Amino acid sequence: MKVAIVGGSGYGGVELARLLQQHPNVNLTQIISHSQAGANFSEIYPQMTTIIDEPMKDLNLEKLADDIDLVFLATPSNVSHRFVSDILEANLKCIDLSGDLRLKDPALYKSWYNFETTAEAYLDQAVYGLSEIYQDQISEANLIANPGCFPTAGLLALIPLIENQIISTESIIIDGKTGVSGAGRGLSLNVHFSEMNENTKAYQLGNHKHIPEIEQELSEKSNDSIMVNFTPHIIPMTRGILMTSYTNLMIEQTNEQITELYQSYYQDQPFVRIRENGQIPSTKEVYGSNYCDIGFQVDSRTNKLIVVSVIDNLVKGASGQAIQNLNIMAGWDQRTGLHQIPIYP
Amino acid sequence: MKVAIVGGSGYGGVELARLLQQHPNVNLTQIISHSQAGANFSEIYPQMTTIIDEPMKDLNLEKLADDIDLVFLATPSNVSHRFVSDILEANLKCIDLSGDLRLKDPALYKSWYNFETTAEAYLDQAVYGLSEIYQDQISEANLIANPGCFPTAGLLALIPLIENQIISTESIIIDGKTGVSGAGRGLSLNVHFSEMNENTKAYQLGNHKHIPEIEQELSEKSNDSIMVNFTPHIIPMTRGILMTSYTNLMIEQTNEQITELYQSYYQDQPFVRIRENGQIPSTKEVYGSNYCDIGFQVDSRTNKLIVVSVIDNLVKGASGQAIQNLNIMAGWDQRTGLHQIPIYP
Amino acid sequence: MKVAIVGGSGYGGVELARLLQQHPNVNLTQIISHSQAGANFSEIYPQMTTIIDEPMKDLNLEKLADDIDLVFLATPSNVSHRFVSDILEANLKCIDLSGDLRLKDPALYKSWYNFETTAEAYLDQAVYGLSEIYQDQISEANLIANPGCFPTAGLLALIPLIENQIISTESIIIDGKTGVSGAGRGLSLNVHFSEMNENTKAYQLGNHKHIPEIEQELSEKSNDSIMVNFTPHIIPMTRGILMTSYTNLMIEQTNEQITELYQSYYQDQPFVRIRENGQIPSTKEVYGSNYCDIGFQVDSRTNKLIVVSVIDNLVKGASGQAIQNLNIMAGWDQRTGLHQIPIYP
Amino acid sequence: MKVAIVGGSGYGGVELARLLQQHPNVNLTQIISHSQAGANFSEIYPQMTTIIDEPMKDLNLEKLADDIDLVFLATPSNVSHRFVSDILEANLKCIDLSGDLRLKDPALYKSWYNFETTAEAYLDQAVYGLSEIYQDQISEANLIANPGCFPTAGLLALIPLIENQIISTESIIIDGKTGVSGAGRGLSLNVHFSEMNENTKAYQLGNHKHIPEIEQELSEKSNDSIMVNFTPHIIPMTRGILMTSYTNLMIEQTNEQITELYQSYYQDQPFVRIRENGQIPSTKEVYGSNYCDIGFQVDSRTNKLIVVSVIDNLVKGASGQAIQNLNIMAGWDQRTGLHQIPIYP
Repeated sequence: MKVAIVGGSGYGGVELARLLQQHPNVNLTQIISHSQAGANFSEIYPQMTTIIDEPMKDLNLEKLADDIDLVFLATPSNVSHRFVSDILEANLKCIDLSGDLRLKDPALYKSWYNFETTAEAYLDQAVYGLSEIYQDQISEANLIANPGCFPTAGLLALIPLIENQIISTESIIIDGKTGVSGAGRGLSLNVHFSEMNENTKAYQLGNHKHIPEIEQELSEKSNDSIMVNFTPHIIPMTRGILMTSYTNLMIEQTNEQITELYQSYYQDQPFVRIRENGQIPSTKEVYGSNYCDIGFQVDSRTNKLIVVSVIDNLVKGASGQAIQNLNIMAGWDQRTGLHQIPIYP
Repeated sequence: MKVAIVGGSGYGGVELARLLQQHPNVNLTQIISHSQAGANFSEIYPQMTTIIDEPMKDLNLEKLADDIDLVFLATPSNVSHRFVSDILEANLKCIDLSGDLRLKDPALYKSWYNFETTAEAYLDQAVYGLSEIYQDQISEANLIANPGCFPTAGLLALIPLIENQIISTESIIIDGKTGVSGAGRGLSLNVHFSEMNENTKAYQLGNHKHIPEIEQELSEKSNDSIMVNFTPHIIPMTRGILMTSYTNLMIEQTNEQITELYQSYYQDQPFVRIRENGQIPSTKEVYGSNYCDIGFQVDSRTNKLIVVSVIDNLVKGASGQAIQNLNIMAGWDQRTGLHQIPIYP
Repeated sequence: MKVAIVGGSGYGGVELARLLQQHPNVNLTQIISHSQAGANFSEIYPQMTTIIDEPMKDLNLEKLADDIDLVFLATPSNVSHRFVSDILEANLKCIDLSGDLRLKDPALYKSWYNFETTAEAYLDQAVYGLSEIYQDQISEANLIANPGCFPTAGLLALIPLIENQIISTESIIIDGKTGVSGAGRGLSLNVHFSEMNENTKAYQLGNHKHIPEIEQELSEKSNDSIMVNFTPHIIPMTRGILMTSYTNLMIEQTNEQITELYQSYYQDQPFVRIRENGQIPSTKEVYGSNYCDIGFQVDSRTNKLIVVSVIDNLVKGASGQAIQNLNIMAGWDQRTGLHQIPIYP
Repeated sequence: MKVAIVGGSGYGGVELARLLQQHPNVNLTQIISHSQAGANFSEIYPQMTTIIDEPMKDLNLEKLADDIDLVFLATPSNVSHRFVSDILEANLKCIDLSGDLRLKDPALYKSWYNFETTAEAYLDQAVYGLSEIYQDQISEANLIANPGCFPTAGLLALIPLIENQIISTESIIIDGKTGVSGAGRGLSLNVHFSEMNENTKAYQLGNHKHIPEIEQELSEKSNDSIMVNFTPHIIPMTRGILMTSYTNLMIEQTNEQITELYQSYYQDQPFVRIRENGQIPSTKEVYGSNYCDIGFQVDSRTNKLIVVSVIDNLVKGASGQAIQNLNIMAGWDQRTGLHQIPIYP
C-alpha cells in the first residue's frame, strides 16, 4: 500500500515516518510539509540521515491522489477539516491525527476548539479510531478520526468499567501527566528547556480540548450523559502519558475481580497489557512502543477504584495507533510494523 | 540560640544545615549522624566545603543537652518516637521532622506506619507544626511535629475551603506529584537515575502514610470525619511538589470569590502567595524557597473547585517550615533566615 | 540460530533481549542470571510483559551447550575470563560484552582492571569486535571480545585518521560524555537520581579501563605506540555517548577533504553516517539505534582537527554491536534485526 | 547604593534581581526592559510575586542618572557598546555583563562577534572583571566588563598554572560543558525541551566568542601569545558549567604540589575552593552559589595536567560575579549579599 504523510515536519509526522519505514506492507512515497517544502527530510531531522533523505513537498492533492492509496494527516488543529472533503472525493482513504473530526456534535468545535467546522458533513462518517474499541467500524472505514493522546489512555482504562456498570457515571476525575513532546515542535516559552526542566505545571484547567472527546465516548458507552473532570499536567520528560482515573465503585469489588474484568475485556488485544497483583505501570515501561499498560487499586476505605494507564503519547497516543488503524482497515494483523519493544532504560 | 541536627546525613538534615547557616540568630553547634559519625560534613556533602567542614558526631544526649537549646530531629520514620521522652526530660526543645509524632491517635501508627508508637504520652503534647494554621500553639510549644511534605501543600490549599464550608467534606481527591528528593538519600532501584529519568510512576495507592495526617487535620477543621483519596506520583525532577485537589463546591462560587477567600485567609502570612486571574503556579516558581503558592479554577460545568498548590518539598515541605516554626517558638519574625528567593530558571 | 544471554538482569542483557526478540534469524532460548534465577524476566523488567515472561535460570553450561549455538556474555568485569575456556570447549560460540577479553597483553589486566586474567590463553584468539574495522576476522571467529562503549565511538572516529596518517600519534585527547545507563543497574550514590539529575561530573581521570583498549587499537593501526588522554564525564541523561577527539593535523586539510576521507573509508558501512558541511551530530540523533554518527571541524588557526562521534551506548556501544557481530559471524547482512530507527524526539 | 538593571527580562537580569534583593547594602530601584516595558516584573517572572511586583520601565538614561549610582547592563551582545559612552558621561558607574567591552583589541569584534564596536575608546578603560585576578583594578574602576561564563571557569583554573609557568603555553585544550540556561530565554529549536532533553551537543567548534577572551587573558598573564582550543557542549540540565582543561606540564609535578600551588594562589579568595586528594568537583556542588570549585589530576603517563573547574553559569559565571565586582568597587567585603550556599540536592 502506498501512503503519504501530510504535516511531516511535526513530531506526529516524523514518528509516523519512523514507524512506517519499519512497516513491511507499506510504501511511504511522500512526505508533505507546507512550511518545509523543498527541504530534505534528513536536513530537518538529522536522525533520518541515510534513511529518508528525500525532499518534502508542498501539497498537490491531485498529483498525490494518482500516486497513493491513503493519506495520514498529521497537521495541527483547525487544518484538516478544510481538506477532508477533497481527500475523500479524490478517492483517498484518510487517517486524521488531529482533533478536527473526532467530535460528532459540530457545535462542540465552536465551544472547545474555537473554530467553526467546515466538515460537518463528515463528522458522522469519521470513525473514532480507538482501535481496541471500534475495531469493526474501523475495518470498514475510509475516514478515521485518530484519538487524542489523553483520551486514548483514559478511555482504554474507563470504558471497560463503564460498559460493565462497575463505576458510577458521576464524578469521574481524571488527572493526566504528559511528557513535553505532546506540545509539539512549535516554540513557546512554556516548553523552553530552562523553563520546563525541573518543573511541573497544571494547565488548561476545565477547558482542555480532550474533555469533550472523553465525554462523548464515555457517554456513548453508557447511554448516559457523562461529564468528567480532566486536568492535564506537563512534566519534565519527553515522551509518555500517565492517566490517573478516580472513579466511584457502584458495587463492591476486589482487585482480583477488576483484574479479571480487564483481562476478559482485552483478551484478544495485543497492545493492552493488564498488570496483576497491584502492580502499577510507569510510563517508561511503554516507551517507544504501541502498548497501553493498565494497573489499578480498589480503595475499599473510600469505595473508589483508582486506575493508572500509561502510553507513549507519540505512539499509541498518535502515530502508532494510526498505523494500528491502517492495519485494521487493510485487514492485516494489528501488530504489523508495530513490534517495537519498549526501550528501557 | 544554639541548636543541633540529629540525622544530618540525609537530605532533610543537609537542607536544615544550609538554611540554619544563613540564619542570623541561630548557632548550629553540632550535626549528629549515627551512620556517618566521625566523617567531616563536607566530605559527605562536598558542596559544604569551607562552609561546614566539622566532623559529624554520634548522639550523646547528655552532653548535647549541656550545649544546646533545641534539637531538630531529621531522622527516618520509626526513630524519633523512641527519643522524644529523653529529649524533653533533658529540657531541650524539639522539632521533629519525621512522622512519628504527627498523629494524635496512637492506633494509626500500627495501621499506617507499621510500628507501635512508644511515644503515646507525647502525641497530645506535640503541636502539629503547620506554621500558618497553628501559629499560636507553636509559639508556646516545646515539641513540634513538623508536617509531611504532601500534607503541607495539600492542607494549605484545603483548610481555608473547609473552614469556610465552601466545599463538601465528601469525596475530596488529591493527586500529588513529587520530585525524587522526597524519597531521600537511601539507595533503591526506584530512584536509580536510569530507571527514574524519563519516567513517571504512581505509588502506594490508597496506603500512603500522609493520608491519615491529611484526614486528621481536615477533620479537626471541619468537626466532621473526613476521608480523602490521596495518590502520590513521582516525576523526573529533584525538588518540588504539586498537589492537585479536586473538591465539590457546596455553594456557587466565582474565581474572584475564591481569590478573595484565600487572600483574606492568608493576609498576614508572608509564605503563602495566592495567584490571581486564573494563574496556576508551577513547582519551579518556589524552588529553593519557603513559599507555598496556590492557584485554582472553578469548574462551573461540574460544580467543582480544582486547587493547585506547590512547594519545595525540602524547604516548606520539611526544613524550611521547621525553621519557620523555630522562629515562631522564639518570638522572631517568621521570615528570619528564610529570605531565599526561588531560583529560576 | 539458538542463542542464550548470560547476565540477563543487567542493562546490557535486557537490551540484548530487546534486540534479539526483533531478530528474524535468532531464537533466544534462555536468559541466564545468577542473582535473579527463578524470577520471571517480565517481573524484573515489566516492559517485557507479554513479550518475555519466562523465568531466568541459573547457569548450567552442559545443559546449555545441548540447547544453543552461541552465548552472549553480558556479565560484569572479572567474570567471563573464568568461563571462556569451558564455553569454547563445549563447542559454543561466544560474544563477550565485558572487557575481560579485549586486551591482548595480559599484564594490562593487572594494572588497569585490578585482577589477574585466567584467560591468558584466549586473549589472542578473541577477535576485537569493532564490526566496521575487523569484519573479516569476525566472520571467521568463534570468540568475540565486544568493544567498550567509549572505545567504539572513539575508535570509529580516529582509526580512519590514524590509518591515513592525517593526524599525529602524539597528544591525542579524547573527552567523553556518557549517559548514566553506562554505569549499569547496580545501585550507587553516584547515580542516585537526586545526586545525578542537574549535575555533571568527570570521573576516573587518567585511569579509566577504556584507555588501554583505545591505545591498543590505535597502536595496532599505526605501527606506533600511541598513548591517549581519555577523560569520561557522566551527564544527566540515560542513553548516549558523545566523544570529542582533539587531534593534531600532520598535513593541511579542509573540511571537504576530511569528509571525503571518512566517506570513502566507511562507504560500505551502513551503520556509520558521516555528517557533511560542518554539521555536528548530537546523541539523540542515534537514540535506540545502532548508528555511529561522525562530524568534525578543521581548526586551521591551531592546526587541529576536532572530531565528534556519537552512539547509543547500549546499542552500538554494547548489545547492538554484539548482534552486528553475530550477523557477520553467521554470514547474514550486518543489518539483520538492527533496523531500529533512532527515536526522536 | 542605588542601582538599576538594564535588560531585566533575560536570565542574567532576573538572577541579578534575585541576588540584589538579598544584598544588605544595595537598593534595586529600577528594572529596565525595552521589550517588556510596562509589564510587572512578577507577571513575567511569577516566582518574584510579592518580592518584586513593580513594573519594568523603558530606558530613560537622564532620568535614571538622577536616581541611581550604578547600572548593570544585562543586555544581549551588540547592545551595550552603543550605550557605554552615555552612561559614563552621565556619571554612572557601569558593570556590563555582555561581551561588548571584554576584548581590548577592537578588531576582534569584527572577526569573532560579527559587529564593529562603537566603543573603541572605552575598551582600555573597561576593567576585565575576573574578581579574583583583577581585584585591585576593579576596586578603582567605574566601568567593568564582566567576564563570560566559560572564561570565568576556564581562567580561574588556568591562570595560576600559566603565571607559575607550570604548563606549556602550547596546545591548551579546553572542553566545556554547559547547562541550557547559558543560551538565555530566547526561543530556539536548539533549546526546545523535547529536542534538548536526553541529548548532548557540541556547538560552534573553533569559532565560539569566548575563545578570544580566554586567549587575551592567558596571553596577558604569560607574556606570550597563547592560542587555545575551546569547544563548548550543551547538556540536558539548566544550570552549571564544567570545564575540563588539558594542559602539558613543563616540569614534573605531583598532585600535592598542584594542590599547594592552587591553595597558595587563592588563599585569600573566599569563592574559589580547591579540592584535595584527587577529588573532582561536580556542577551541582556549586548550584545557585558564587563558588568556583577546582579539582585536577596529574597524568604522569602522558605528562599532562587535567583540571576540572565548575561554576553556576548564572551566578559566578554572570550575575554573582557582577555583584562580587560591585562589592569590590564599593569597598565592601566581597561576600556581601553572596552568602547563598549551594542547593543540594
